[in-house]
Amino acid sequence: MPGSGKGIVAGVAKSLGFQIIRMGDVIRDEAKKRNAKIGETAVQLREEHGEFVVAERCIQKIKDLSKDSSNHSDLFIIEGIRSPFEVEMFRENFPDFKVLSVNSSPETRFKRLQNRKRADDSIDKSEFENRDKRELKFGIGEVIATADYMVPNEGSIKRFKNIIRSILTNEM
Amino acid sequence: MPGSGKGIVAGVAKSLGFQIIRMGDVIRDEAKKRNAKIGETAVQLREEHGEFVVAERCIQKIKDLSKDSSNHSDLFIIEGIRSPFEVEMFRENFPDFKVLSVNSSPETRFKRLQNRKRADDSIDKSEFENRDKRELKFGIGEVIATADYMVPNEGSIKRFKNIIRSILTNEM
Repeated sequence: MPGSGKGIVAGVAKSLGFQIIRMGDVIRDEAKKRNAKIGETAVQLREEHGEFVVAERCIQKIKDLSKDSSNHSDLFIIEGIRSPFEVEMFRENFPDFKVLSVNSSPETRFKRLQNRKRADDSIDKSEFENRDKRELKFGIGEVIATADYMVPNEGSIKRFKNIIRSILTNEM
Repeated sequence: MPGSGKGIVAGVAKSLGFQIIRMGDVIRDEAKKRNAKIGETAVQLREEHGEFVVAERCIQKIKDLSKDSSNHSDLFIIEGIRSPFEVEMFRENFPDFKVLSVNSSPETRFKRLQNRKRADDSIDKSEFENRDKRELKFGIGEVIATADYMVPNEGSIKRFKNIIRSILTNEM
């Protein structure tokens, strides 16, 4: 969910040698091309190319990177999975695939987003709630409810990073 | 989700003086009356009386208990909330209402349920997956994704109980 701290996971993963594949980049690149808002583009892209378009592009990217001999890491983190369909596709293509969910309360996430400046982050309460609803419509609740790892991110950042590090090291 | 450890939360809450309202009891009592399976009864009851039947009966129960002068505790734990509609109803009726979600991975939950003997718990993998799907259909993923507290329950029971205790004490 927005503001729960998935970016921190990506940072820790990168430091451990993982390559970061951001589902959001597919959408961000497309939004730039269309000169449209990111949230709208996310919905539109799926309407035009089906539920699976973002996952398909990420899977292709990972396969291309795996074939590239100049590329020494075969550890990947996919950031920003939202729907159970996407989970199924990644699982079919990559047998070792696991879901890690990072969770913070709505109160905590709202406070964090208010303090952020990225263009696609919400500012007022109704924007925040609409953004949550949009994410939930993709089925993200089901992805969270059935994740292989669930890590709360409410208190100490240091402790949170340690937990993420130990999970990722275990999967390497 | 089934097998994640909500019963342990109820146990801790009880020891702190909370009264336990089990949504499942409404369904369990009804299943006994109908001589039907609990999972089926849960679906049927909602089909007959609407999405809100179980929550309605629990809200009435809490209001009756609050009026009862022989009853000294006004702290309640509602165990087994599944849908976002139910969350909304409890929130409307009780302004201090908070959602606490207890989370374990599917692998952990499956192992636990295999070791359990209660009649409504699943035994084989496909039963387990069907039960998960039934819960997810109620919208439990959305409830989990937007919970006020999310507590993972994977490792030490003692640590888990301590976290629950500190959350509940904070809300007393």
